[in-house]
Amino acid sequence: MKNVLLIGITLCISTSVFAARQSSEPIKVIEPAEGLNTAQVALGKKLWFDPRLSKSNVISCNSCHNLATGGVDNLPSSIGHKWTIGPINSPTVLNAELNFVQFWNGRAKDLQEQAAGPIENPKEMAFSHNLATETIGTIPRYREMFKQAYGKKDFTITEVTHAIAEFEKTLRTPNAPFDLWLKGDDNALTQNQHDGYILFKQKGCTACHSGPLAGGQMYQKMGLVKPFNTNNEDIGRAGVTGNDAEKFMFKVPTLRNIELTYPYFHDGSVWDLKEAVQIMADIQLGQKLTDDEAGKITDFLKSLTGEQPQVVLPHLPPSTKATPQPNVG
Amino acid sequence: MKNVLLIGITLCISTSVFAARQSSEPIKVIEPAEGLNTAQVALGKKLWFDPRLSKSNVISCNSCHNLATGGVDNLPSSIGHKWTIGPINSPTVLNAELNFVQFWNGRAKDLQEQAAGPIENPKEMAFSHNLATETIGTIPRYREMFKQAYGKKDFTITEVTHAIAEFEKTLRTPNAPFDLWLKGDDNALTQNQHDGYILFKQKGCTACHSGPLAGGQMYQKMGLVKPFNTNNEDIGRAGVTGNDAEKFMFKVPTLRNIELTYPYFHDGSVWDLKEAVQIMADIQLGQKLTDDEAGKITDFLKSLTGEQPQVVLPHLPPSTKATPQPNVG
Repeated sequence: MKNVLLIGITLCISTSVFAARQSSEPIKVIEPAEGLNTAQVALGKKLWFDPRLSKSNVISCNSCHNLATGGVDNLPSSIGHKWTIGPINSPTVLNAELNFVQFWNGRAKDLQEQAAGPIENPKEMAFSHNLATETIGTIPRYREMFKQAYGKKDFTITEVTHAIAEFEKTLRTPNAPFDLWLKGDDNALTQNQHDGYILFKQKGCTACHSGPLAGGQMYQKMGLVKPFNTNNEDIGRAGVTGNDAEKFMFKVPTLRNIELTYPYFHDGSVWDLKEAVQIMADIQLGQKLTDDEAGKITDFLKSLTGEQPQVVLPHLPPSTKATPQPNVG
Repeated sequence: MKNVLLIGITLCISTSVFAARQSSEPIKVIEPAEGLNTAQVALGKKLWFDPRLSKSNVISCNSCHNLATGGVDNLPSSIGHKWTIGPINSPTVLNAELNFVQFWNGRAKDLQEQAAGPIENPKEMAFSHNLATETIGTIPRYREMFKQAYGKKDFTITEVTHAIAEFEKTLRTPNAPFDLWLKGDDNALTQNQHDGYILFKQKGCTACHSGPLAGGQMYQKMGLVKPFNTNNEDIGRAGVTGNDAEKFMFKVPTLRNIELTYPYFHDGSVWDLKEAVQIMADIQLGQKLTDDEAGKITDFLKSLTGEQPQVVLPHLPPSTKATPQPNVG
């Protein structure tokens, strides 16, 4: 009885701390995905891993957004068709649904629109939407799965990218130490992580890195206070809008799982997280962090590593005589 | 009581049919792997999926032996470092432990020896054994796993390839319809599959394709009766031994999961299984199969597709400041 009471009291306190932290803290809890259509997710998962969406049959979505490595490829920029080096760092697919727009420059409004890009990008999968759907359409098991997921065996790139996006929505990483702390568990963070979080707020990082993603909610200029030195030619949002005022404006990236998603920045130029923290403070906020401050903020950022998705590798249905052969040239 | 008796009798008949078929049939049952060291397997699984064993950090074991697609890449030959096209078709890793030697030309005696090859092959992962172990050795979590698996945090390529091989040993595909039939279930094969198996034996295919792998037990000349037309320059076993008499002698490949492991032959030149069957009968056995015969043998071969390994994608431990950066050039 005493134990039950104690548990009850503890739960009450945790719950009210959670309510308080949830409303007052700028970074919010990541919740697991809910209510998705299982047939669409199952189909999307196969398509996610299927290299037959690329011209060469070598590159799948997972090649550049590897679910074994934080949803990225840990390269400055991805390697595409014929070993073409891409123009910008691949962002993580983990929790990506929660970004307010997709791509660094926001040129896609959501995951489905994003998924259509790489398939026909000559530097990535180098295919066309028609050839990709034609290829997948020659595989009877896929046609059955489209029928189950969308009520029809015939499909277009719309259903292909929709299914991929639905699978991507499952890729949440809940229960990071920071989330447990937000939910009221005072022991979830080390002292350094907690100190780092206080510094993170005091220094002004949360002006951009807020919400469940600790980012992903706005564009911001890379090099707000001081210019960012880079060889990367991407001009950010201005490349989409043609508006010079938006030059070097990029979507603020999520800091969720940042420990896993090196190298950092849109040019993938920085490999060390602490160094990235120091550069950000300098060029975005005009502040020099002490080594101790940068270390503590880095420790805090590592508390944003959540439970990684448990993904059983799918078995892809085999091609048929009608399936176009790969073209690696 | 009557039911119990009936079940008892059925089991008895099945058991004796199994015993009879197991001893008399040239193709034997594939059994699941047993008795492996779980710490070594867990480590090997991470290494299997880890692209940091390649110079570019782009290519992992799974790139060319994809467990989503029958343990192969479904390409005539694999794409390696800097998009180099390999010299020969990638054989499947599924059940590969049961091959009497590894590689098409048998130049490795077992899986461990095989695993060392691609890491330092400039056309594949293009790394060196020293650089690969140095890279992995900078990652604390890996050092702990080596300690757990081999009793020491310091390791060489020997432990790396041993762990990979131990993981590969788990990749069996039991309970194919043909195995169920071998075990006494007369309904496991369709009539065409059963007829195809009788033809497969009558035509002489089992002279080479026997044992649990339906292959993998000997070398044989590709083009035994008639020459095999190919642009592939590999001379097979003679390339290892220097013995002209072994020119074009290759390890007989397994037919297990052959439905999934297209394109066929060491040059990966044939995409259609029925066509591959017809060519084999012609150039290896000097026989022209009717369309009906080739169709039935193909149907039988599809009964060799077993349960594919259920592999939860591992989460790879992140690199550190000390980890060498990838080199894609």
